[in-house]
Amino acid sequence: MSIKSEMVETAKAAREASLKLANCNTAVKNNALLKMADGLLKNADTIKAANAKDLKTAEGKGLSKAMLDRLTITDKVLKTMADGIKEVANLPDPVGEITRMWKRPNGLLVGRMRIPLGVIGIIYEARPNVTADAAALCLKSGNAVILRGGSEAINSNLAIAKVLQDACKKEGVPDTAIQVIPTTEREAVLEMLKLEEYIDLIIPRGGEGLIRFVAENSRIPVIKHYKGVCHIFVDESADLDMAGKICLNAKVQRPGVCNAMESLLVHKNIAKEFLPRMGKKYQDVNVELRGCDETRKILPYAKPAAEEDWSAEYLDLILAVKVVKDMDEAIAHIAKYGSLHTESIITKDYSNSQRFLREVNSSTVLVNASTRFSDGFQLGLGAEIGISTTKIHAFGPMGLEELTTQKFIIYGDGQVRE
Amino acid sequence: MSIKSEMVETAKAAREASLKLANCNTAVKNNALLKMADGLLKNADTIKAANAKDLKTAEGKGLSKAMLDRLTITDKVLKTMADGIKEVANLPDPVGEITRMWKRPNGLLVGRMRIPLGVIGIIYEARPNVTADAAALCLKSGNAVILRGGSEAINSNLAIAKVLQDACKKEGVPDTAIQVIPTTEREAVLEMLKLEEYIDLIIPRGGEGLIRFVAENSRIPVIKHYKGVCHIFVDESADLDMAGKICLNAKVQRPGVCNAMESLLVHKNIAKEFLPRMGKKYQDVNVELRGCDETRKILPYAKPAAEEDWSAEYLDLILAVKVVKDMDEAIAHIAKYGSLHTESIITKDYSNSQRFLREVNSSTVLVNASTRFSDGFQLGLGAEIGISTTKIHAFGPMGLEELTTQKFIIYGDGQVRE
Repeated sequence: MSIKSEMVETAKAAREASLKLANCNTAVKNNALLKMADGLLKNADTIKAANAKDLKTAEGKGLSKAMLDRLTITDKVLKTMADGIKEVANLPDPVGEITRMWKRPNGLLVGRMRIPLGVIGIIYEARPNVTADAAALCLKSGNAVILRGGSEAINSNLAIAKVLQDACKKEGVPDTAIQVIPTTEREAVLEMLKLEEYIDLIIPRGGEGLIRFVAENSRIPVIKHYKGVCHIFVDESADLDMAGKICLNAKVQRPGVCNAMESLLVHKNIAKEFLPRMGKKYQDVNVELRGCDETRKILPYAKPAAEEDWSAEYLDLILAVKVVKDMDEAIAHIAKYGSLHTESIITKDYSNSQRFLREVNSSTVLVNASTRFSDGFQLGLGAEIGISTTKIHAFGPMGLEELTTQKFIIYGDGQVRE
Repeated sequence: MSIKSEMVETAKAAREASLKLANCNTAVKNNALLKMADGLLKNADTIKAANAKDLKTAEGKGLSKAMLDRLTITDKVLKTMADGIKEVANLPDPVGEITRMWKRPNGLLVGRMRIPLGVIGIIYEARPNVTADAAALCLKSGNAVILRGGSEAINSNLAIAKVLQDACKKEGVPDTAIQVIPTTEREAVLEMLKLEEYIDLIIPRGGEGLIRFVAENSRIPVIKHYKGVCHIFVDESADLDMAGKICLNAKVQRPGVCNAMESLLVHKNIAKEFLPRMGKKYQDVNVELRGCDETRKILPYAKPAAEEDWSAEYLDLILAVKVVKDMDEAIAHIAKYGSLHTESIITKDYSNSQRFLREVNSSTVLVNASTRFSDGFQLGLGAEIGISTTKIHAFGPMGLEELTTQKFIIYGDGQVRE
């Protein structure tokens, strides 16, 4: 069978499964999830053996230590995966919720009911835990999922999927609700991206290169973020102790993630007081600073920032620093160089806080808190399938609700159009 | 200047205008809308003169009478356009609304605030009134709009846009918030569809051919419906008088629109009683029936339905009729042949009504009412920019709210991630 017809078969099977899954009740879905969690622990040896194959190939290819770490499945990793699935089982089921209902003058009752999207394609790299996380979120929200992981993790992903599918079967959920694409050919992705008849949404997760490839080749709607160039603006009225703690946390608590701060904007009226204190904190933990001219007058040890530093996503202990003359300049800088991901203002001024929240149209905008809170779990969504900087459908962290859409439901008693 | 660079300039100007428009207050936007309505009436002669040019070209090309009718701008058409804009001015402004707010255990207050999408591209055919309608809806929802109408209406569209832009300028709204593409080359559309950096959403409105062309060539998210193959299922428990009124209304009240019924499904237990009565009603108004074998046993004058009739969007006084053995068959038929647009059940049975609402995942599902209510005005959205059968972002009729997205806003008092 050609790759094209294999993909069509996979997608058709997913579509059929999605129609059944859309009408599975919550208890059935939760039981399947609990069996999935259980299955991962019970089949630890099989999964680790498959993972060992992947690791051997990866070592042969000379993958970096960091990549190998992300690829490795230990008992602890399996425990975390199983716990994550159990958490999803405990979350409320969004499907069938009626979010609003109103009455029209002619007596029609009009409402909106949440339904699954249908079939979701997830294209991701490296970490095999995404296989379990994404499958659990899609199942709970009533969506069939087609998973396409990185070629480095193919054996691990197939082994995990086998366990998840067995759990589905035991609970009467179609096992084709969760499918991993067995081939590692790139052609499979290209074929998948054409199947808009069967697949409702594509979520790519990984490096910017992968995401651009998907976005440029897809006929199916794609929800994505390319990168997170997150800013903190320290206003002239900021509590500088608070600003210090937040700016340190946002940069160094976990520098390799998309909601870490990459650019720091400092109001000129407090720059001379704040920057030396902050610079010291950063020096203590080896953060490299790249500053504008004003910054470097105050912190001569900062490297000069080049134009590309203002839009860089370092994902590392590097920070671009700019002194701005006012809030207008800060907002304009964010509009020009930002990635619509996450921005925070540190301020004691009421109207500045309101203006920043209103005028910065990034997906998450904070006052007096670390950018690191831009995350589904942290914001109380219970789980996260990804973060969107596409303004369509979902903007910001996406939980179960964002994996649904709403249909109009209408109760009449014989109404016709005049 | 090449078409490509023209399109880039247009889109860049729209992006800049959108940043300003996003922060215009409601009064400014409403004043601009009222000036726009006023301007259309005051400049009636100029607009009609431009329209006369289009009509002359169209006649030369031998356009059908129906097409010429849709293209013609009379004083009455202008009045309707102006009234439509005034209605939009009267609708609540969705921008800035905070739809929810919740508190996290660490004290963070997390909420969601509506913001404009940014820049919207509308690609449409024939009717120049779309120019005014779409511009008004985008302006009110804080979005800049790039309008690409049909080549037949180019002079009319440019004349209307000029009036709308002048009104914007008078009220301090950037006039590049509303732009009509001045070239009629198809290349302009292709270039526009690549500009995902500047345009957030494309809404195509017109025939299926246009919509497929846009969907297949766009790198920008597209919200669309290809067609409306709307079903009514007359259940065995239906009130047959009510069913008769609704089935007549749904087919004949305005057969050329997407929410008219195209397929009628009748439960076998009432087919012998219902079909002869209904067939008579349809014969009286010259509806051509195309039936399954069972239907033709009862209504021998019905033509035989071919396979393609079950998925046909006739947009005409033609109806496909099928006798089904039960609700399962009705729901399966809709899942197989439907277009996710609008379906209705006529029933007196409580659990059947609930099951139909739950299991039919079309964008609008009704009980005991005509499919013709699937419309933004009728459902109380106040206005309509289109109807979506894409499950992403908006599903069903789209009003002002569907032209916005929601960002997360977060109030903290110094929180950092542990």
